[in-house]
Amino acid sequence: MLYDTSSATICAQASAPGQGAIAIIRVSGPSTFEIVSKVFKSRKGKRLEDIKGYSLCRGSIYKEDGSVLDDVLVSVFHSPASYTGEDMVEIYCHASAYIVSEALRALVTYGCQCAAPGEFTRRAFVNGKMDLAQAEAVADIIASETASSHKIAIQQLKGGFSSELNQMREQLLHIVSLMELELDFSEEDVEFADRSELRGLLGKTSSHISELISSFKLGNAIKNGVPVAIVGATNTGKSTLLNALLGEDRAIVSSIAGTTRDTIEDTMNIGGILFRFIDTAGIRRTVETIEIAGIERTYYKIKQASVVMLVLDYTRQDDFEESVKNLSVNLGGGDQRIIILLNKIDEKPVIVTSLFEGRDPESITPEENISKVCDIISAIAADNNLSPLAILPISAKKQIGLDELRTVITHSFQSAIPVTESVLVANLRHYTALKEAYDALLKASVALDENSPSDLICQDIREALYAIGTIVGEISTDEVLGNIFSKFCIGK
Amino acid sequence: MLYDTSSATICAQASAPGQGAIAIIRVSGPSTFEIVSKVFKSRKGKRLEDIKGYSLCRGSIYKEDGSVLDDVLVSVFHSPASYTGEDMVEIYCHASAYIVSEALRALVTYGCQCAAPGEFTRRAFVNGKMDLAQAEAVADIIASETASSHKIAIQQLKGGFSSELNQMREQLLHIVSLMELELDFSEEDVEFADRSELRGLLGKTSSHISELISSFKLGNAIKNGVPVAIVGATNTGKSTLLNALLGEDRAIVSSIAGTTRDTIEDTMNIGGILFRFIDTAGIRRTVETIEIAGIERTYYKIKQASVVMLVLDYTRQDDFEESVKNLSVNLGGGDQRIIILLNKIDEKPVIVTSLFEGRDPESITPEENISKVCDIISAIAADNNLSPLAILPISAKKQIGLDELRTVITHSFQSAIPVTESVLVANLRHYTALKEAYDALLKASVALDENSPSDLICQDIREALYAIGTIVGEISTDEVLGNIFSKFCIGK
Repeated sequence: MLYDTSSATICAQASAPGQGAIAIIRVSGPSTFEIVSKVFKSRKGKRLEDIKGYSLCRGSIYKEDGSVLDDVLVSVFHSPASYTGEDMVEIYCHASAYIVSEALRALVTYGCQCAAPGEFTRRAFVNGKMDLAQAEAVADIIASETASSHKIAIQQLKGGFSSELNQMREQLLHIVSLMELELDFSEEDVEFADRSELRGLLGKTSSHISELISSFKLGNAIKNGVPVAIVGATNTGKSTLLNALLGEDRAIVSSIAGTTRDTIEDTMNIGGILFRFIDTAGIRRTVETIEIAGIERTYYKIKQASVVMLVLDYTRQDDFEESVKNLSVNLGGGDQRIIILLNKIDEKPVIVTSLFEGRDPESITPEENISKVCDIISAIAADNNLSPLAILPISAKKQIGLDELRTVITHSFQSAIPVTESVLVANLRHYTALKEAYDALLKASVALDENSPSDLICQDIREALYAIGTIVGEISTDEVLGNIFSKFCIGK
Repeated sequence: MLYDTSSATICAQASAPGQGAIAIIRVSGPSTFEIVSKVFKSRKGKRLEDIKGYSLCRGSIYKEDGSVLDDVLVSVFHSPASYTGEDMVEIYCHASAYIVSEALRALVTYGCQCAAPGEFTRRAFVNGKMDLAQAEAVADIIASETASSHKIAIQQLKGGFSSELNQMREQLLHIVSLMELELDFSEEDVEFADRSELRGLLGKTSSHISELISSFKLGNAIKNGVPVAIVGATNTGKSTLLNALLGEDRAIVSSIAGTTRDTIEDTMNIGGILFRFIDTAGIRRTVETIEIAGIERTYYKIKQASVVMLVLDYTRQDDFEESVKNLSVNLGGGDQRIIILLNKIDEKPVIVTSLFEGRDPESITPEENISKVCDIISAIAADNNLSPLAILPISAKKQIGLDELRTVITHSFQSAIPVTESVLVANLRHYTALKEAYDALLKASVALDENSPSDLICQDIREALYAIGTIVGEISTDEVLGNIFSKFCIGK
């Protein structure tokens, strides 16, 4: 059964729960004015249905026993000029839990139903006020915590993504309808659709979709946090580094090697981008089962990460070679960004006198030594085909070099975020649908090259059209809609 | 310096913080339209100052860099027809912490100041939109958690309390001005003010004020929770009872006597009234210093409580006498309500065979025995001049008899809450001012009886007028206002 929007009038608190100055109660549906007028009386005795749309009216709301519940403002919207497209009223009352619950109780008594999560937006979609991608953007906007994730969501709400998709659909629809016309005249062997034009269009659309698909990794990272794995041998100070970056005691820190057995994650907004820092178990030869599981997970996390920070211990230079090699064989490929950190530079330096031949060891400054050690690391990295963004001397414990580290992390990403209006796909549902569309168009291309019959080619293109149609909601099922809107908050 | 309301334009989030569908940002002050128009652009290109008051307008808000922050609705209010009496705009945006903070940041950049707690209501008061008692009611309404505390607050907001006070003031002012007129004609020995009428008026006003003063105990109890002390010897199950009433593991329960050393409090809404249950340290002879302190506090709590529940242990009948006596000497006097609970009736009863002379002990039912024990308790209570509301057999552990207990507790209070529109004083500041007024009127009465000179009597009445004036805010200082509004939430 398709979602029935016609009968019920729904209500919900639309502002966040808790104490504040004002709370908003939303009502939408065909009986809005009838039900609300049993709860609300305007100060001037005006009837709700007579109040102009998009205007506010002072009055009082009443409990079922007739006693005054609160002095309020209400706003009135007449169908179809409202968020949902239906008649709507919003009540602005004092933000007391008691008042809000009593008002909702009275509305329900007089015939309202409590709105399901996202039900107002679902009605807006069903009534054609916005497409599905825009509806999804509403939830993303509310959830967005950083400038970059907000930017993706607002672009999607504004319809940038939808209009790109609709353009593609129109072009594909044009071609497919011409080809289907040919089928009607199949005996006559006419070609309404120019095959070379079709080939060009398929290629152009495929490559556009392919761009959107590959934008997902970045888009998803921006939405859910760019994964930054902190890796290295045991006891090099990875957890201390995570705590220092997050500014709190997030990971349990001890000097016993192998303290962090599971991966620990936490997010942080740096320069408008959300980063998801992942502290991993230290890598060392071990016989403990739990720890082996932790190390396996570490390898997996390294492959998934957009940024990998390798932490080396300044006081244990013998481990450098193995740590770097270990990382290089476990990388995921692609555009992973590597940063190598030389930690514990506050500790007593191990002076490698051989590097300073002919110098009096006493005359070598700590800075000179650190610089030489960084050179060694750089050489080791090159030997292992790693090109790190930076090799930074730091002390996680003494908070030395962390600002430089933050700058390196953000700079590499700030440049990746499009400043133009180009679209980033950040939604897994969209990504999956785009991949389906891409595969279908690829099949169509192959069929075209093989001079397959038009109806086969048409079928492939129709499949791509279907996949694209699910994104904007041209095609949708109750199940898909239920899935999408159940993730919304109530009142939206 | 008096509060300067003229220059600054203020902004704040008015809805509760946190995720929701819609958030409200409020702007008020002389530059409202000028500042908001730098952040907001109407969809139809309308200028804010040209939009009719009490109407809504769709558009977008922008970040300082010119990029779209959100699609919003704004409402426009022109001075003086607004909450504060100033020009006001409310922005209804998506309830994302990011959007709200960026919008507020942009408003501040363009010249707004962040509103202090209660500053909108303070401006409403300064601009004569409401008196001080009404302004205070706004905060009480937001904080009200129960039907009864909400009722007091809404009555105060509606001006019921203020109009009673104003009536008194007017009558006193009338008399005092006539008497002051006499002073101008003092040589002529005229009496414009009828002394017997004055005496009648003073008496009437004093008794009205006295009524208001005595309503404070109930008003305050309703606002902050009616204090219910749970007392009794150690290990009679007081903490178990508290947990059973609250329905959660609020107090640490163990069978070791003396577990509850400090008083534990928690509130609960029963039948529309907030009750503040106070678990107290058991009373027993002890040498432990901490426990002695706990017992001292228990005595204090007993004196303060509106309801005292004495818990007796069914299995330790030898303690009854001492427990009841202990309570009776520690009561606070006044209209304290006493309830005696016979706890642990689920445990193996101690059959007092002497009470059932001639009966076969085997034939005595537990109910019969409990009933007899209650009779004994009733006699002990009478001996100690206690008249308990009820003596209830219960089992806190097995949740037996708790519904009856709740009914007894609420019934005694529901009858005390006025169903009519009579005013209850629930605010300590009002209570203090009323007492000052009462004392001053008492002095005036005495002076009148002693035929003191008119100017002395006038001075006393003026004092009373001053005290009453501070309640509605006819007379107020920056310090008093600062004190009142600092307790408000931001955005109100």
